[in-house]
Amino acid sequence: MTVAPVDLSHLTLIDTTLREGEQFQTADFTSSDKRRIAEMLVGFGVNYLEVTNPAASERSFKDAEKLVSHLPRTKIAAHIRCHPEDVRIALDSGVGALHMVMAVSPILRSVSHGKGITEVIRTAEECAKLARSRAPGIELRYSNEDAFRCGREDLAKVYGSLAQSGLFDRFGLADTTGVASPMDVQQMVQWVREETGKAIEWHGHNDTGCADANAGTAALSGASHVNCSVLGIGERNGIASLESMIAFLYTRSPDHIRQHYHLDQLQDITRFVADCVGVEIPFSHPIMGKAAFSHKAGIHLKAVLQDPGSYEAIVPEEFGLERHLNLAHRLTGWNAIR
Amino acid sequence: MTVAPVDLSHLTLIDTTLREGEQFQTADFTSSDKRRIAEMLVGFGVNYLEVTNPAASERSFKDAEKLVSHLPRTKIAAHIRCHPEDVRIALDSGVGALHMVMAVSPILRSVSHGKGITEVIRTAEECAKLARSRAPGIELRYSNEDAFRCGREDLAKVYGSLAQSGLFDRFGLADTTGVASPMDVQQMVQWVREETGKAIEWHGHNDTGCADANAGTAALSGASHVNCSVLGIGERNGIASLESMIAFLYTRSPDHIRQHYHLDQLQDITRFVADCVGVEIPFSHPIMGKAAFSHKAGIHLKAVLQDPGSYEAIVPEEFGLERHLNLAHRLTGWNAIR
Ligand SMILES: O=C(O)CCC(=O)C(=O)O
Ligand SMILES: O=C(O)CCC(=O)C(=O)O
Ligand SMILES: [Cu+2]
Ligand SMILES: [Cu+2]
Repeated sequence: MTVAPVDLSHLTLIDTTLREGEQFQTADFTSSDKRRIAEMLVGFGVNYLEVTNPAASERSFKDAEKLVSHLPRTKIAAHIRCHPEDVRIALDSGVGALHMVMAVSPILRSVSHGKGITEVIRTAEECAKLARSRAPGIELRYSNEDAFRCGREDLAKVYGSLAQSGLFDRFGLADTTGVASPMDVQQMVQWVREETGKAIEWHGHNDTGCADANAGTAALSGASHVNCSVLGIGERNGIASLESMIAFLYTRSPDHIRQHYHLDQLQDITRFVADCVGVEIPFSHPIMGKAAFSHKAGIHLKAVLQDPGSYEAIVPEEFGLERHLNLAHRLTGWNAIR
Repeated sequence: MTVAPVDLSHLTLIDTTLREGEQFQTADFTSSDKRRIAEMLVGFGVNYLEVTNPAASERSFKDAEKLVSHLPRTKIAAHIRCHPEDVRIALDSGVGALHMVMAVSPILRSVSHGKGITEVIRTAEECAKLARSRAPGIELRYSNEDAFRCGREDLAKVYGSLAQSGLFDRFGLADTTGVASPMDVQQMVQWVREETGKAIEWHGHNDTGCADANAGTAALSGASHVNCSVLGIGERNGIASLESMIAFLYTRSPDHIRQHYHLDQLQDITRFVADCVGVEIPFSHPIMGKAAFSHKAGIHLKAVLQDPGSYEAIVPEEFGLERHLNLAHRLTGWNAIR
């Protein structure tokens, strides 16, 4: 067997449906949608949720505040810019973690904040100091947006200085335009971990189809926190999906995943969010796609009738789902079911 | 820049929409659908197509025969079992390549052909000899089905013996149940290449969301041939998609991809196949998903209005597509377009 089992005890999935997902084209969550999504995620077993910047609007603030009081055992993190104002407002909302982010690539620095690398570092430190002075024990994460279009030297400066400051609990690494290959992810996660000596969080987009596998790769390469969203919704065509992460981790450590997640609840969350944002669940989606457990070629049907594990890496029944055997199609005639 | 440009001159994309894709749940291609799909693919720039076993049915035979004569400059490969009958019939259809496959994992061997490893090797050799005796110059590929659930020793025996036989041009490596991580792919491709000294072909499924990234990883790890299908259609939730492969390779070597493919034709192929099999193009699909070039958060909109490259790894116009700016949404108010 070349698929090695993996120890997942140090891995935390951060669901960002209520932040990155809110940036999806057709997402327009009401406060009650948000509450329902958060409840379902927590019921399923996710214990770390990222929400939209409370400084973004009055409603974002109120929604964050309500989630915090409604879900006292769940870590709610506010995703914020490195602005003192954002820090203050986010802390006022009562969240348990601040996820700060700053653009570091030359292209994003120039169209976004216009700051040089030294100023990026100074700004992040100032915000972190402000946060620590007001809420010493809060979980603080700093992430470099667009890290894969940034030179190694600049990255090393930012991560290195901020690690030395001792202000942060964890560093994020964002593949903002979805250009990283899995090998890039592996190298970068290992490198930033060595540079900083800190826990690493992964966040990656799907522009070239790598979001799911990159998130899985990050988890296997030493990232302690990985971002995902229901259906992978987010800016453009999105990020890693919760469903794919569960599929990926389940094939590596089924017992861990069964113990920590109520697998039969996954379908309700996926369907609810799909309805909320008005998309069809992609036919190609792991676990939840309509074709995920559909077998057709004669050889496959014959095998699956004897032992479903022959052509299934995941047991549909554990997710409250059924396999579908296309017995009527002419292709099945080939090595027919005899 | 950590995304390294790559030399793609030794990489061939094999489109298997007309083989693996025919095994998709709702695929039921007519002969004229097949011809149209093949024509569109060839027009786009794909020059290697895999088709269903001509021994599967009279129609599969005729369809293969017609494609061969209709597309004389395209390599048409028949995907066959290691049966002398399949070899003979496939050769009679006039195809330019035989893609033989045999199950090698213990679970598939037991529910499929019931043969031991030695017999697998003998069977593959016999079929290859038959093929070589009748069509000495034909392109011959042998692939191990379910290679990732097979022990290394067994794999080494099969690949090693068949490489020594000198009968094959290339060896395939199939992640039949979609359990391989990108790191597994990288290791396996490199290992089989070293074991055999031959060109390597990659084929991988999407059960855990890794099909696209695994195919990209294989290409960057030394595979000379990579399988994909339009929309990734195939058994269950499918394999790597042509669209994702183009997106992935474009971000690494845009000039090569522009020179070899008519990018503005990709959308017609994708839409045609989606219609044929009655699926919606997944919103999360690279390039072709409806959200692929949709920007929403204020920070993103502001940046994209200045320079689309700020948040786009791929230029939509090159694919005849347009970006979509969600200017009306309340989230855009945050760092509004000033
Ligand atoms: O805060 C982060 O790490 C990620 C921000 C983001 O959404 C991105 O860069 O794509
Ligand atoms: O012939 C091959 O390499 C692939 C066969 C197949 O479709 C699979 O194993 O998933
Ligand atoms: Cu993002
Ligand atoms: Cu396959």
